Amino acid sequence: MTRFLSLPNALVLAFFTLFIAMTPVAAQSVDINSTIITTLEAIGAAASDVALEGGASEEEAALAASDAISTIVADTFGDRDAKIFNTLLFLIGGFLVMWMAAGFTMLETGLVRKKNVSMQALKNIALYSIAGLMFWLVGYNVMYGGEAGGFIGTFSPVNFPAVGADTADDGYSVASDWFFQMAFVAATASIVSGAVAERVKLWAFLAFTIVLTGVLYPITGMWQWGGGWLAEIGFTDFAGSTLVHSVGGWAALAGVIFIGAREGKYGANGAVTPMPGSSIPLATLGMFILWMGWFGFNGASQLAMGTIADVGDISRIFANTNLSAASGAITAMILVQLIYKKVDVTMVINGALAGLVSITAEPLAPSVLQTLFIGGVGGAIVVFTIPLLDKLKLDDVVGAIPVHLLAGIWGTMITPLSGSGTFATQAIGVIAIGAFTFVASSIVWLILKATIGIRVSKEAEALGLDKSEVGVEAYPEF
Amino acid sequence: MTRFLSLPNALVLAFFTLFIAMTPVAAQSVDINSTIITTLEAIGAAASDVALEGGASEEEAALAASDAISTIVADTFGDRDAKIFNTLLFLIGGFLVMWMAAGFTMLETGLVRKKNVSMQALKNIALYSIAGLMFWLVGYNVMYGGEAGGFIGTFSPVNFPAVGADTADDGYSVASDWFFQMAFVAATASIVSGAVAERVKLWAFLAFTIVLTGVLYPITGMWQWGGGWLAEIGFTDFAGSTLVHSVGGWAALAGVIFIGAREGKYGANGAVTPMPGSSIPLATLGMFILWMGWFGFNGASQLAMGTIADVGDISRIFANTNLSAASGAITAMILVQLIYKKVDVTMVINGALAGLVSITAEPLAPSVLQTLFIGGVGGAIVVFTIPLLDKLKLDDVVGAIPVHLLAGIWGTMITPLSGSGTFATQAIGVIAIGAFTFVASSIVWLILKATIGIRVSKEAEALGLDKSEVGVEAYPEF
Amino acid sequence: MTRFLSLPNALVLAFFTLFIAMTPVAAQSVDINSTIITTLEAIGAAASDVALEGGASEEEAALAASDAISTIVADTFGDRDAKIFNTLLFLIGGFLVMWMAAGFTMLETGLVRKKNVSMQALKNIALYSIAGLMFWLVGYNVMYGGEAGGFIGTFSPVNFPAVGADTADDGYSVASDWFFQMAFVAATASIVSGAVAERVKLWAFLAFTIVLTGVLYPITGMWQWGGGWLAEIGFTDFAGSTLVHSVGGWAALAGVIFIGAREGKYGANGAVTPMPGSSIPLATLGMFILWMGWFGFNGASQLAMGTIADVGDISRIFANTNLSAASGAITAMILVQLIYKKVDVTMVINGALAGLVSITAEPLAPSVLQTLFIGGVGGAIVVFTIPLLDKLKLDDVVGAIPVHLLAGIWGTMITPLSGSGTFATQAIGVIAIGAFTFVASSIVWLILKATIGIRVSKEAEALGLDKSEVGVEAYPEF
Repeated sequence: MTRFLSLPNALVLAFFTLFIAMTPVAAQSVDINSTIITTLEAIGAAASDVALEGGASEEEAALAASDAISTIVADTFGDRDAKIFNTLLFLIGGFLVMWMAAGFTMLETGLVRKKNVSMQALKNIALYSIAGLMFWLVGYNVMYGGEAGGFIGTFSPVNFPAVGADTADDGYSVASDWFFQMAFVAATASIVSGAVAERVKLWAFLAFTIVLTGVLYPITGMWQWGGGWLAEIGFTDFAGSTLVHSVGGWAALAGVIFIGAREGKYGANGAVTPMPGSSIPLATLGMFILWMGWFGFNGASQLAMGTIADVGDISRIFANTNLSAASGAITAMILVQLIYKKVDVTMVINGALAGLVSITAEPLAPSVLQTLFIGGVGGAIVVFTIPLLDKLKLDDVVGAIPVHLLAGIWGTMITPLSGSGTFATQAIGVIAIGAFTFVASSIVWLILKATIGIRVSKEAEALGLDKSEVGVEAYPEF
Repeated sequence: MTRFLSLPNALVLAFFTLFIAMTPVAAQSVDINSTIITTLEAIGAAASDVALEGGASEEEAALAASDAISTIVADTFGDRDAKIFNTLLFLIGGFLVMWMAAGFTMLETGLVRKKNVSMQALKNIALYSIAGLMFWLVGYNVMYGGEAGGFIGTFSPVNFPAVGADTADDGYSVASDWFFQMAFVAATASIVSGAVAERVKLWAFLAFTIVLTGVLYPITGMWQWGGGWLAEIGFTDFAGSTLVHSVGGWAALAGVIFIGAREGKYGANGAVTPMPGSSIPLATLGMFILWMGWFGFNGASQLAMGTIADVGDISRIFANTNLSAASGAITAMILVQLIYKKVDVTMVINGALAGLVSITAEPLAPSVLQTLFIGGVGGAIVVFTIPLLDKLKLDDVVGAIPVHLLAGIWGTMITPLSGSGTFATQAIGVIAIGAFTFVASSIVWLILKATIGIRVSKEAEALGLDKSEVGVEAYPEF
Repeated sequence: MTRFLSLPNALVLAFFTLFIAMTPVAAQSVDINSTIITTLEAIGAAASDVALEGGASEEEAALAASDAISTIVADTFGDRDAKIFNTLLFLIGGFLVMWMAAGFTMLETGLVRKKNVSMQALKNIALYSIAGLMFWLVGYNVMYGGEAGGFIGTFSPVNFPAVGADTADDGYSVASDWFFQMAFVAATASIVSGAVAERVKLWAFLAFTIVLTGVLYPITGMWQWGGGWLAEIGFTDFAGSTLVHSVGGWAALAGVIFIGAREGKYGANGAVTPMPGSSIPLATLGMFILWMGWFGFNGASQLAMGTIADVGDISRIFANTNLSAASGAITAMILVQLIYKKVDVTMVINGALAGLVSITAEPLAPSVLQTLFIGGVGGAIVVFTIPLLDKLKLDDVVGAIPVHLLAGIWGTMITPLSGSGTFATQAIGVIAIGAFTFVASSIVWLILKATIGIRVSKEAEALGLDKSEVGVEAYPEF
């Protein structure tokens, strides 16, 4: 125990020095460095002594020392780059998904009438702010603080690691994961915002948002991503066709049912009055923002970027996400040309979005042909169901229900095509999450209706919510 | 063979363990780990035996074993971080260049008249979708599937690596490269979209887009970035002043010639009727989006981020790209003030864009002074040639030809200033790619003209394409 | 010296080979590789010989050789990944902060009247371009080229490292740092642009911008981030509540005082004529862009991402930044509801921005509750001081002074709450930087007023700056 040991020791330490040397504060490193070197030498010596006492040869003792040291080094420093990459993935994915809040805002301000544009802007700023607050206060721990196979986590605020206190123990920084997941919750509330536009009361909508982002979404989220009972039975939803989009869609559907259609939208004998949006370029911008943000939404849902396999998979996800959106847009475009002889750009916008929602349940496994099929059907769903909703007198202002609920269900049910989940597990997940969200949302909407009211007066609606609720016209000089 | 060998063995394995330890799934790693350790030990032992049998000393045998193992380790794991960094560069660069699709959309919807805004939005969504599809179906392999020094690759779809199947063999994930390159193709089609705006038929434009993105762009792209004949003779085009921007510009020029000017644009005696764009803020937003996206366009064209030299070069590229755009904008601003006594903001927008196009052929090598010169001349080109095009009765709605074709040629011809290429190689590339693209585009436009027609009726043009082709007004309440 | 030495030697070299193998150009690597291997062997041999001559045992000599080699390797390659991560942080942070230029543009074009929208777009393109130029020409070295404890750096252009010349010596690429810091300067000028909107002369504003971005901002920046006298006394300003936002606010305040209020804004007896902005959706988009960009602004101000602690801290910063903005928006929303019975969306927009400014002086240390308090007070400041400015007849068109100056002071003074700085150091910094900037800005505005004039004629103001200064109407068809 000495001569031979010293060699691996020296080399592992050389190796280890390299990692230490990467810390930016050189002076500080030296102290830490020498402390750890001393510690490692002690560990190596101890391991070697144990081996020798156990009758090992000098060579075997040296090996034992080396193994002990290398294990420590790997445990302590081996995950460094991987954790940085993983956390960076959440941060980049997070700001891209946060950016989707702007996308929903532009989409919705573009698709509502001029007199309700400021209200739509306000609702989206407010819901994104509330989502952030609620998902810190209770949401994150309701979703991720539960036990395996369970139904709900704990109602408690998140504790972020203290300054400088992150270690390699988890694969990523909790604060980065919180940020990324928080942006998802906000997307769910945005979906509701679009559907009930142009007649919902501001504070009723915000009250609903508080419950949705703090409790409802986190509960069903817990069932799957929180490791709950759906995860145990084998349900799969990679980035949230069901957990995010359908949940938003179900909450929106309940809202649309209980709030009723806009004044004048549906006349006698099935007459439908078109109420075209105020700005197509803003709606288009919103779609592009959402498309861009979806690379974060789906890509960072890989949850890890510290290996070549992971970053390769993220690349696959980027490609599939893009191709599914393209397929949805092109399919919608061809269908509206065939059916209506003109190409309604709002259908193409929603076709692209439906393509994105459809691939979200499984953006990694499908081949390109499968992806094109999945996204294309999503686009077709939009073209065929938007008129259907009008037949049912469900007044969904921006097409949120076809895009997020129906394409979300489609995307979730088709994952077995590429080998993820079974039709049975997927159906159970879709139904369970749908039933819970629809019933719970309905209860919340009904309570709000019975108390503060969820709909503005007829006069206020005719005047426009910008004047009645916001006090600021969106385009005062136009 | 044994005592000494075991030491390096142990240490290389310690080293190797560290990499293995970075994989997120611990349970799985253990199995892989022990398998590989066994394999490596066998390789080391074999190498050592061979050496000993060849008469080597024990020490030399140990060294041989160590070398054999370290080679394997380096081959297998050495490129890990570099490949992650490289692929991450493509992913970030890719979403930034994808975002340029929104930039072109905003720029063009802002610069066309109110009655053609929805059409411009629709064309851009459609062209981005088609570019994605075509560049998967044939484009990528036409461009990158050919032989060194050749003229064309193969007409076949891309195969992305299977899930989890990426290895360190290439420097990056193929799917990430496809995504990044795909966004470039879309930019080319966007350039055409702006030039032929306000009178082109939707489906004729889309048919042209199919050919441009699937075949024309990939062919000339193959000549250079695909390792074809232009690359062999020493032509240089770092990020595509010619391969992307001039190609788009030539295709646009052919389109503008064969489609003719908008009704009423050019009167008798050289009279030019101004047809100002509908929204300066949207055009400005488009420019800022493009400027932002250009950091991906030029920066990620470094194609690697796994070394300090590479990331330093990317930083240089960011700085030069920004300074060239600034120089183009400021030059245009000063010139229009001097010439017209007012500062036409659309000229400044196009000046910034021309600055960006100009530096794209070589954003790395120029000094700052060279960069300011290159971008400034780009801005001046815009100011002087936009009126010139009107004299030639070439009706380029958004100024795409000055910005992308002329500044693209300028940028490509000036690369020898900072030591890249020679004037001869650059001229050959500009002429060859220009001639091919212009002739091929002309043929496609002429075939479309003779078949489905490329221009809407006079009535439709007067009414606006939003009503005639899209069926949705962009601003119905204004 | 030989047998034992050769083992660590071989292994360190194996290790080293791994790094070399990461360079993309294989052929080149081989030459560099063998050169360095030879060099390292020589270094190791020399160290060993010295040790042996000094009476060391063979084992000690081997250790000495190993140490010498490993030191070289660590110095040369150890910082590789850390430097790549750090530089990548600046590049990502840089494009996000650059993107804030678009955010200010949208915010301001949305909040000015229709007749001054093109002017606002133009000013923002121009100021961003000028900031880039000036911060290269003198700004960066005025700010970072000085001596510790000093008052000013040197008036000289930046030298970027040559192509491929970046090494591990600094922690990041200088060009990436320049890019990141340059985008900060532009933000400062944007703040001024909003306050003096609708009556400032274009070239006077640009002349002010030249001085602000080239000299004024860099001087006070030097005092703190350049390691000057404020840094020495313990002032703290993590990402620039004072250095960026208050500086912009003081310069704006001086401008607002010397240029005077818009015609008709303030009548007799304290009457205030509202002049509502032309586009709420664009203002909202601007706010979301700024919010997104702020993750780069604050997050990348961590200045390092090469350790787990750093990336964990960046994650904390992301979370705090988001929560402070949310708190500012929600607080403003509740207050305007209580005070005015309607929810003025422009107050909520400015509330969110004030939340962002408030947390910028210390986005890392505060707990979530502290963050919510800091951001919430920021939002309240906006609600209470925007009317106050009107009482003082300070006509700040977009609310830049409350958001950037007052919330900036608040954010800087409250940092001791979470342990950074003392009230005394913070007050010294706020007063010193404020006094300098206000006085120097006043002098510049007064010189401009006395020479080229800073305000357009009454006729031009009534007509709108788009016609008088730009010659291009923003919405000619509306």
